[in-house]
Amino acid sequence: MKAITRIEHCLALAVASNEAPGSPPKLAAAICHAVFPGGARIRPQLCLAVANACGNTDPELADAAAVAIELLHCASLVHDDLPCFDDAKTRRGRASVHFAYGECLAVLAGDALIVMAFDTLASAAGRSPTRLAPLLKVIAAGVGMPHGIVAGQAWESESRVSLSQYQRAKTGALFVAATCAGALSAGADPRDWQALGERLGEAYQIADDIRDVMGQADLLGKPVGQDAQHARPNAITNLGLGGAVSYFESLIQEAADSVPECASRQAMRELVWQESERLVPRTACNVYRSVVLPAETV
Amino acid sequence: MKAITRIEHCLALAVASNEAPGSPPKLAAAICHAVFPGGARIRPQLCLAVANACGNTDPELADAAAVAIELLHCASLVHDDLPCFDDAKTRRGRASVHFAYGECLAVLAGDALIVMAFDTLASAAGRSPTRLAPLLKVIAAGVGMPHGIVAGQAWESESRVSLSQYQRAKTGALFVAATCAGALSAGADPRDWQALGERLGEAYQIADDIRDVMGQADLLGKPVGQDAQHARPNAITNLGLGGAVSYFESLIQEAADSVPECASRQAMRELVWQESERLVPRTACNVYRSVVLPAETV
Repeated sequence: MKAITRIEHCLALAVASNEAPGSPPKLAAAICHAVFPGGARIRPQLCLAVANACGNTDPELADAAAVAIELLHCASLVHDDLPCFDDAKTRRGRASVHFAYGECLAVLAGDALIVMAFDTLASAAGRSPTRLAPLLKVIAAGVGMPHGIVAGQAWESESRVSLSQYQRAKTGALFVAATCAGALSAGADPRDWQALGERLGEAYQIADDIRDVMGQADLLGKPVGQDAQHARPNAITNLGLGGAVSYFESLIQEAADSVPECASRQAMRELVWQESERLVPRTACNVYRSVVLPAETV
Repeated sequence: MKAITRIEHCLALAVASNEAPGSPPKLAAAICHAVFPGGARIRPQLCLAVANACGNTDPELADAAAVAIELLHCASLVHDDLPCFDDAKTRRGRASVHFAYGECLAVLAGDALIVMAFDTLASAAGRSPTRLAPLLKVIAAGVGMPHGIVAGQAWESESRVSLSQYQRAKTGALFVAATCAGALSAGADPRDWQALGERLGEAYQIADDIRDVMGQADLLGKPVGQDAQHARPNAITNLGLGGAVSYFESLIQEAADSVPECASRQAMRELVWQESERLVPRTACNVYRSVVLPAETV
C-alpha cells in the first residue's frame, strides 16, 4: 500500500473512534472537519519514509507515530485559526473549524486531537513497549514547551523575538519530531535523522513565508499576506525575496545531503527534491529572484 | 513526605521545565499561573492514595500519574474560563489565565499543559515500561473523546443532552482516571478502583451544582450562578436542592463502600468522608434540605 493511502486509512480509523455511542456528535464532526480532507500530509510521510529507511521493524508503531504527528499538526492549525490568533475563515480551501462549528468546538477539537495523538501512540505500543516512552517524548518535544509548536506560537505574544528561534519552534520542531519518531518507531537512533528534520522544517517555513508574500489565496487554500497583517516575523523582511529564495534552495540541498547511509538513501533524497518542487517550484525560484516587492507587503 | 507536599513538589518541577533557555517567557508564566497556587488537588491525592493502597511499587510513576492528572485538570480550567465558554475573570480567588495573560496565551497554556501531562508520564516510565501504555490510555480516556472532559464540555454545545452523560464526562471521567491510574502505576488491576472514581466524581459534580446555587463567590474563588446564567444542565434543576443533597450523601456512602479489601481500606474510607465534609459539610446538608430556592436560581 502506498504510504499516503496507509496514512489516510489510519487517520480515518483514529477519527472514527470519536463517533462511539454516547459521544457528543458536533465535536466528533468538528474533529473530522479538522483532519479531512487533509493537506499534503508531508510530516507523516516523512515519518514513514524514515521508518522505512531504518528497516520499519514495527510498522504498526510507525503508522501510529505518523498519525500522532499529523493529528498534532491538525490541532495546531485549528487553534492557530481561532479569532484570537489569525481569525482565519478558510483553511485548505474551505471553512476553518471555528468558522464552521463555532469557537467553543474549535478549542475542544484542538484539545481532543492532542489527546488522541498520544492515545494513538499508546494503543500501538504492544509489540515494542520500551519504544513508547522515547517516541512519546520526541513527539511531545515537537509540540509542547519549551521549544515545540506552542512555544513557537507563543513567541508571537512577545515583544522581542529571534526569527530563527521562532521558526524553529513554530515549524521546525514538528519536522524534527517526524524524522526522529520515524527512526525511534523502528528502534533506530534518532540523532542520525535530526538534521533532515531541521533543514526540511526550516525550508518549509521559508517557503511558507515566500508564498505568504507571493502566493494566491486560492492556491494556498488560506488567506495570504497574514504575516504582514499580524506583524509576524517573516524571513522576507530580513533577507529580501531573492535572499529568501536562495536560502530555501541551500536548505533543501543540506536536507538532501544530511540523509545518512541506508538502503533507501537515494529514495529519501528524491523525496526531499520532490517536496522542494511542491513547496516552491524551481522555475518560480528563478522568477522570484528578480521580483521587486512593494514595501507594504514585507 | 505528606502526599500533598510531594504533589506540589512534583508539579513545581514539571512547571519549571518550561523555563528553559530559549522558551517564550510569557507562556511559561501563564502556565505557572494556571497551576499555582492550586485548589484542593483532590484528583492527584486520590491517585496517590490508590497507588499506596495497591502497594505503590513504582512511586516515581505514581507521582507522574498524579501530576499528569492535575496538569490536565488545570488545562481544562484554563480553557473552560475562556471568553467563548464561561468568560470567567476569576479562578481560585484571582485573575483567570486569559484575564491575566490574554486569550492567545490562555489557549496555548492549555495546549502546553496537555502535552506536558503526557510527557511527564513518559519521563517516569523507565522502571516499569510496560505500565506506560495502559496508564496513558486510562488518563487519555479521562480527558479526550469520546467520554472524557472535552466530550463533557462539548455536550454544552448540543441541544439535547442527558445530565448523567454530561456530568460523567465533564467531571466523573477524570476521577475515574485518577483512581485507575493510581492502581495501574502500582501494577494493580484498575477495575477494582473504578467505582470509587465514578461515585466520587459524581458526588463532586453534584456538590459543585449545590455550591453553584448556594455558595458564595468569595468562598469558591470563582463566580456563582454560572449554570443558570449559561443555561447548563444542573442537578438541582432535576432533583431540587433537597433531592440533590440526599443524592450527594448516597454517592459518598457508595464511594466509601466501594473501596476494595486492602491494607489501607479504613484510611481510604476516611479520605472519602473527609473529602465529603470539605465539599458539602454535613451541617450544611441538613440546613440545605429545608431551603426553598427562588425559581430563577434553578
